[in-house]
Amino acid sequence: MTDRRNFIKKAGTLGVAGMILPNTSLFVSENNNTKPLFSEKTKWADGSRMVVSVSMQFEAGGQPDNAESPFPQNLEKGYKDLPSATWYAYGYKEGIPRMLDSWDKLGIKVTSHMVGSAVLKNPQLAKEIVLRGHEAAAHGMDWSSQYNLSYEAEKKFIKDGVDAVKNITGFTPVGYNANWLRRGENTLKILQELGFLYHIDDLSRDEPFIIKVNNKDFAVVPYTLRCNDILLIEGKNFSTDQFVNQVKMEFDQLYAESEFKRRQMSISFHDRIGGSPQMVKATQDIVKYIQTHTGVSFKRKDEIAKMTLEDKTSIRE
Amino acid sequence: MTDRRNFIKKAGTLGVAGMILPNTSLFVSENNNTKPLFSEKTKWADGSRMVVSVSMQFEAGGQPDNAESPFPQNLEKGYKDLPSATWYAYGYKEGIPRMLDSWDKLGIKVTSHMVGSAVLKNPQLAKEIVLRGHEAAAHGMDWSSQYNLSYEAEKKFIKDGVDAVKNITGFTPVGYNANWLRRGENTLKILQELGFLYHIDDLSRDEPFIIKVNNKDFAVVPYTLRCNDILLIEGKNFSTDQFVNQVKMEFDQLYAESEFKRRQMSISFHDRIGGSPQMVKATQDIVKYIQTHTGVSFKRKDEIAKMTLEDKTSIRE
Amino acid sequence: MTDRRNFIKKAGTLGVAGMILPNTSLFVSENNNTKPLFSEKTKWADGSRMVVSVSMQFEAGGQPDNAESPFPQNLEKGYKDLPSATWYAYGYKEGIPRMLDSWDKLGIKVTSHMVGSAVLKNPQLAKEIVLRGHEAAAHGMDWSSQYNLSYEAEKKFIKDGVDAVKNITGFTPVGYNANWLRRGENTLKILQELGFLYHIDDLSRDEPFIIKVNNKDFAVVPYTLRCNDILLIEGKNFSTDQFVNQVKMEFDQLYAESEFKRRQMSISFHDRIGGSPQMVKATQDIVKYIQTHTGVSFKRKDEIAKMTLEDKTSIRE
Amino acid sequence: MTDRRNFIKKAGTLGVAGMILPNTSLFVSENNNTKPLFSEKTKWADGSRMVVSVSMQFEAGGQPDNAESPFPQNLEKGYKDLPSATWYAYGYKEGIPRMLDSWDKLGIKVTSHMVGSAVLKNPQLAKEIVLRGHEAAAHGMDWSSQYNLSYEAEKKFIKDGVDAVKNITGFTPVGYNANWLRRGENTLKILQELGFLYHIDDLSRDEPFIIKVNNKDFAVVPYTLRCNDILLIEGKNFSTDQFVNQVKMEFDQLYAESEFKRRQMSISFHDRIGGSPQMVKATQDIVKYIQTHTGVSFKRKDEIAKMTLEDKTSIRE
Repeated sequence: MTDRRNFIKKAGTLGVAGMILPNTSLFVSENNNTKPLFSEKTKWADGSRMVVSVSMQFEAGGQPDNAESPFPQNLEKGYKDLPSATWYAYGYKEGIPRMLDSWDKLGIKVTSHMVGSAVLKNPQLAKEIVLRGHEAAAHGMDWSSQYNLSYEAEKKFIKDGVDAVKNITGFTPVGYNANWLRRGENTLKILQELGFLYHIDDLSRDEPFIIKVNNKDFAVVPYTLRCNDILLIEGKNFSTDQFVNQVKMEFDQLYAESEFKRRQMSISFHDRIGGSPQMVKATQDIVKYIQTHTGVSFKRKDEIAKMTLEDKTSIRE
Repeated sequence: MTDRRNFIKKAGTLGVAGMILPNTSLFVSENNNTKPLFSEKTKWADGSRMVVSVSMQFEAGGQPDNAESPFPQNLEKGYKDLPSATWYAYGYKEGIPRMLDSWDKLGIKVTSHMVGSAVLKNPQLAKEIVLRGHEAAAHGMDWSSQYNLSYEAEKKFIKDGVDAVKNITGFTPVGYNANWLRRGENTLKILQELGFLYHIDDLSRDEPFIIKVNNKDFAVVPYTLRCNDILLIEGKNFSTDQFVNQVKMEFDQLYAESEFKRRQMSISFHDRIGGSPQMVKATQDIVKYIQTHTGVSFKRKDEIAKMTLEDKTSIRE
Repeated sequence: MTDRRNFIKKAGTLGVAGMILPNTSLFVSENNNTKPLFSEKTKWADGSRMVVSVSMQFEAGGQPDNAESPFPQNLEKGYKDLPSATWYAYGYKEGIPRMLDSWDKLGIKVTSHMVGSAVLKNPQLAKEIVLRGHEAAAHGMDWSSQYNLSYEAEKKFIKDGVDAVKNITGFTPVGYNANWLRRGENTLKILQELGFLYHIDDLSRDEPFIIKVNNKDFAVVPYTLRCNDILLIEGKNFSTDQFVNQVKMEFDQLYAESEFKRRQMSISFHDRIGGSPQMVKATQDIVKYIQTHTGVSFKRKDEIAKMTLEDKTSIRE
Repeated sequence: MTDRRNFIKKAGTLGVAGMILPNTSLFVSENNNTKPLFSEKTKWADGSRMVVSVSMQFEAGGQPDNAESPFPQNLEKGYKDLPSATWYAYGYKEGIPRMLDSWDKLGIKVTSHMVGSAVLKNPQLAKEIVLRGHEAAAHGMDWSSQYNLSYEAEKKFIKDGVDAVKNITGFTPVGYNANWLRRGENTLKILQELGFLYHIDDLSRDEPFIIKVNNKDFAVVPYTLRCNDILLIEGKNFSTDQFVNQVKMEFDQLYAESEFKRRQMSISFHDRIGGSPQMVKATQDIVKYIQTHTGVSFKRKDEIAKMTLEDKTSIRE
């Protein structure tokens, strides 16, 4: 493999016709953003070759009336979208239970991003998620935007959601996911104040990193739109076999890179979508495929955040 | 397989570090909604391992002028969409006859959801559907919404459709499907009053269940958007081979679950879409694949509803 | 195979529990529309087992300024969409020449639906299409709607297009295709008056049929949206391999049916879409696959129309 | 293979029933547009059988606030789309570095179309692209339209972008790509004045050609929408395996044609899209597949433009 270091070596030896020659300062940028991938080896603190993190959104039941669904958005005003409500109910009646059994079968633990109102609607199910060893992360009190709230209103919105999760499941969330990833300018400060360790509303890297919030370290555990059921499957863009193919290709490349570099892959499923039979079959295919590769650890995002915060070699921005 | 019961056993024996321990009351919720899939074994009353139910919408010919079609929706006002009308006519000239031959070839009986105006437009075809052993279910008098009608108007709308089906085919419908599944607040009461046994406008479960309507049992035989030609094929989201792949994956997972649990799979075809050569080829591939698995029964929805209503172990909501 | 005749035989012998018995009048409907597919054997007059007809739209160069294209439809008013014009130009610079070579390689003749203004823009290419043995059919003088024209204006619109084709290529069109299939209430009468033998703007059957226009026979050679590059490929709904898969499945089913019944399959390509390298590769795969089946004739639509008009067993509506 | 020359020979010998006979003048059109593909053999000046050219857009970081992204376009006015910004940042943090390593691994050089503001935002990365042997082409100063600018404003817009690239990377751009290919009526004149050799905003051919601009030769190196990640992948139309299949089919056909004719294939990747793990895996599959064919050269577009301008057999329009 010709990586960048070898390239520089060869370029220095052989010259590159018509090109300016590299000078040593060129590759020492003031921030880390522009370094080529394999310019230096990095690795996971716990010896994993690669880390895969699965998300399971627990939202159904917490949605507002007439929330967006696969049904035509032409309902007359003043009426309730009854079939749409049953589409959401599938999430807690079949979706989450099926996925819980699937994670056990596969032997992996996941991060469940829980909307507060969904937790209150189906408390036993929320408890069971935690009892079976999964992480309960916060996902707002309601199924609504927070980027447009005042500082105080947003803080209450986040804290109410945390309290719902904590009171019902006994698990104190340390991770946060905003509705459609849309945090506002105050969100990270509030999360830091409330004792959170990490958030996921960032797509910029294939590995976790540390940022300063209120002058303290805060972890970012990146999320995915590429391996996410809501855009691809619910958007009716992909059949489930295409989802399998695409996620396997994502893994293949990251696994190859993980020989030299700390790599994290994220996959995400929503109760009423990823919990369908066809998607759980797809998930089984994907995870079993990944599990045939040595050195891959499936981790909850709280584990990743803690490992990142304690690792002096973590990327800092 | 690590199912929930084993998990609880292991959790009780080994403890789950950092987790609260399960207490017995946790899993006895007041309703059935939040039980994990395999917490208790359930099965079909007739000994089937799994039940598959196929729907065949009989709607073409009953559509209003200039109904939505694959043609660009830019027709000037005051003109008739002539090619669109021929697209619909395909449903009764080729689609239904082709599917009828296909069901016979496959040896299965299906449920035909019949729009009253379509039945009146092509009475011989409606009769033939019933003569060949399929169920005639009601699907409204016309191709229009009913959720926004008054109680009396909706009752007449449903009853007129029933009468059309009964008068033409000799078959009395006992099942109902609303236009785009959009029932209103009165629909189920009206159906109960008119002697219906079940409706399908619910996506919340992968098995039938019983609800109380007017204090009497009423069956819900769940429908599907995941294995439905109208969103996936007519929406031009999937090629027909993708449809095959996705429906097979749906079956694979449900069949695996059916070892422990009562599972129903629904597949749906519309005359002008599912009746095309490519979709009937897809259907043959799907059904033949399913038929290689032991213990799977293809059933009409009236059969499923009756079995559900008589089965004391059916889920009640 | 259990076809309808066998079903009736079995039904008569064994009875069908709970069903009304067929009476002989039931299957003698007043029109042919509702007969099941295989109720009687039909065949092609020339002994073909099945007929496949390919269309090649010759439109590029004739489009209006800023016609719809894959580019974002957000161009400021008053400006010309220059890249879009090059996208269309591909149709005559590469698309049609490539397809012409491809048809020769495959040994088939096709029907080219020619927009008058496109013919005038690239007369040599129009001539070459005819010289290489393909049919020149009329497709309007311009790339615009005709359903909303007055009788006289529409007649001129059609006739001007015919004259362009005839003057340039020496071939007199006998078939017609309206823009987006959108004929008006007068279109067929005008076509009959102008000496046309057939039109294709009908999707209702998988075989040609005869209608009465001005009390004279007129042939309908049905068109396709299912095996058509404009909706599936240009709409970015399908990759080219999906197109191959879907069209092969369409063929498989029609070929099976053609054992008992007159079946026609239509496939359609537009110069700037179907003429791309990836689509011509797809076309080669499809046609070569079809050509491995015995008894399949590739025919121009004028040949099909003539055979239909002369065949006393043709369907009449 | 029956090509056009053979057809004419056969047509001349055997006659074509009912067709006018070819006359020699027919195929000598006044411009080259309408010649069939294989009417005369053409080839690449450097002896390549076929040329493949890869584009790598370097745009991320240069986008305006709240630029279009995969997130719902429903952000309230006055707020910043924070997750969307991280989606773009992926382009320079992971996408470009990963692609740079991938090109080295594959041993190919590409053309990087650089937005001026993106270059200024990440100068080290821009330098590294050039250092590793790739072409820096101009792509405007900002991520915005230029077709609607005055002559002077457009000239400044282009020149500012050129200066940014030149000052940072030391490479003087000779090729141009307008935002969404949307050049205006003055663009080519300005490019010629500024010393550019070629532009790519043309989809009309599968090989480069020469046009006259200000009475001087100017090269057109055609671009692609068919093998382009932005419409197919970012538009969520294709899974990455479909992209692989489609691009391979494009190559197969062009490679077959390249036996007789000068053929160029273009493939295009954008930093934040084509730089994802799944797309780089797709790219590796595609390029390795192409590399198993003899006679295929991967070339930067400046190389293609120079070879075209010096080749007397190049197509002229």
